[in-house]
Amino acid sequence: MTPQRVSLITLGVADLAASKAFYARLGWREVRPQDGIAFYQMNGLLLGLFPLGELAKDQGRPEARLGTGAITLAQNFAADAEVDTAWAAAVSAGAVPLKKPQKVFWGGYSGYYADPDGHVWEVAMNPFWQLTEDGRVSIPDTGN
Amino acid sequence: MTPQRVSLITLGVADLAASKAFYARLGWREVRPQDGIAFYQMNGLLLGLFPLGELAKDQGRPEARLGTGAITLAQNFAADAEVDTAWAAAVSAGAVPLKKPQKVFWGGYSGYYADPDGHVWEVAMNPFWQLTEDGRVSIPDTGN
Repeated sequence: MTPQRVSLITLGVADLAASKAFYARLGWREVRPQDGIAFYQMNGLLLGLFPLGELAKDQGRPEARLGTGAITLAQNFAADAEVDTAWAAAVSAGAVPLKKPQKVFWGGYSGYYADPDGHVWEVAMNPFWQLTEDGRVSIPDTGN
Repeated sequence: MTPQRVSLITLGVADLAASKAFYARLGWREVRPQDGIAFYQMNGLLLGLFPLGELAKDQGRPEARLGTGAITLAQNFAADAEVDTAWAAAVSAGAVPLKKPQKVFWGGYSGYYADPDGHVWEVAMNPFWQLTEDGRVSIPDTGN
């Protein structure tokens, strides 16, 4: 057994200064700024930016084994228009547009963009999930 | 501006059944089970497992562009012994050991393992962070 929990998401980045600049352009505030790493207080968890080489070393494996893109970090919103606004803001900040927000097969509204290292963010509205004002989501459990 | 928020972490997986079996072995409970995707209720956010090909298609890019490993998902604990227990439980469940938990340069205690697709999890004790009983972490902000 391990707890069903995520405490920190670390993104390995090629250029820490450039990545910090990108997230600053999104309006994000680094908590307790320091050299060599950056942390952002999220909704009950933290996001960290850490140089790829340092991350590889910390994990005890070659940098060449690291990759990006197979994890999607999603931000959920209460309305389609809020999804559009967030996607446009990210692209304005230098994100690479992957998919313009659009109605999707599962009944919601979703778009994708990538940050400077190719880490993929989804912005979405999902009418089947509960969303609190502070951004936490939950799926109503019907017990089946 | 975009909100400082993560609502859902999606892991692209090569074999959904095998991945679900792995997380079941960790003792995790899928919320509202369904075909083709799996969700787990986390601490204020959700974790999803989704086939790599479907994730690539949903993002509108080739599967070959997806990779794994440059994002570390950390679970924080209140004591070194709890880190050891969680690491051992994961390895027993089939995780690939990357780094046995040990004292690390930043003053904490940390180990790494990889899930069946190479997604990297860190288990750690950080004496400088505040940790609530439900696993949320925060860094005391001194305003500097």
